[in-house]
Amino acid sequence: MSAGEIDRLIGLLARLPGLGPRSARRAALHLLKRRESLMDPLMEALGAVAASVRLCPVCGTLDTRAPCSICADPRRDGTLICVVRDVADLWALERGGVFSGRYHVLGGLLSAIDGVGPEDLGLDRLAARVAEGPVVEVILALPATVEGQTTAHVIADLIEPKGITVSGLAQGVPVGGELDYLDDGTLTAALRARRPV
Amino acid sequence: MSAGEIDRLIGLLARLPGLGPRSARRAALHLLKRRESLMDPLMEALGAVAASVRLCPVCGTLDTRAPCSICADPRRDGTLICVVRDVADLWALERGGVFSGRYHVLGGLLSAIDGVGPEDLGLDRLAARVAEGPVVEVILALPATVEGQTTAHVIADLIEPKGITVSGLAQGVPVGGELDYLDDGTLTAALRARRPV
Repeated sequence: MSAGEIDRLIGLLARLPGLGPRSARRAALHLLKRRESLMDPLMEALGAVAASVRLCPVCGTLDTRAPCSICADPRRDGTLICVVRDVADLWALERGGVFSGRYHVLGGLLSAIDGVGPEDLGLDRLAARVAEGPVVEVILALPATVEGQTTAHVIADLIEPKGITVSGLAQGVPVGGELDYLDDGTLTAALRARRPV
Repeated sequence: MSAGEIDRLIGLLARLPGLGPRSARRAALHLLKRRESLMDPLMEALGAVAASVRLCPVCGTLDTRAPCSICADPRRDGTLICVVRDVADLWALERGGVFSGRYHVLGGLLSAIDGVGPEDLGLDRLAARVAEGPVVEVILALPATVEGQTTAHVIADLIEPKGITVSGLAQGVPVGGELDYLDDGTLTAALRARRPV
């Protein structure tokens, strides 16, 4: 029998991905037992994020600056644009640290089932950005799913006529991957895209 | 490359039980995408909890009232006190809804390794509460671990001389439990505590 305020907090925590009703209860108790060291800082951090983080008007990522620190960084290569589904994918690529160009965050993928069309993803905005700038190549770093590949084809059809190279991520065996555990589709793709050693 | 504010939020979320660095990133993005529906309510709920939830001075549970709604409820049986390790265990018993007495939350268990002694758990406070009130029976609902059972014995030695009944939870086969999957200790305990059908 917890108080209404605690129940409300538990209910909201349970809506975070990765937390269910039971782990949300544990998280709420964890917070209540660590007010100074965790609960107060978390409230402050949420407030700071809510007050300062906005979508970058150029690429669509989340940042405290507009345009974002990647779009504003003169050291990033403006001739390369990497198209990703969402901010999590951008963060994943940045953690890798090998891409030195700029990004374009779609915020989703084309999906007939979910009723997501080209206008929902702002594909015309992407086309306009590519046409305006010094862009030489657009890299489509989209998921290797039906929706991802459909979206990639639509974007390629939109951009290639402008004389800009459109490429996609290589498909093949993951680093450290055992052939025995790979699915047939990945093995077939890796075999087709074989290259000289 | 997320902004410093977002990194800070991710770092704090990762300290919640059940969330690691990767799921904390997902949770932070989930919050950022749902400002009105989740982030703002979560900030409000944290603020409300921080402002109003306190330890009950009688039993040690967390509530917005002091004494808590259980201690203040005249329908709860004041002759029965159930001793639990922490608030999560109290909530678990209340969800069961079969106990109509009052509680005493220790906030931990005796542990030589972690240096937790009787004074850290306020066992004298428990003894005083039992001596003062109309208490007839103290139920020790403590974990069936070495620390839990050590704590139970120390509390029993403290309270039984006052002429008050001290009992513990029954040990045996869980409801719906298959004998085949039970550990030997539980089976032995269930066999020793067998009862007429």
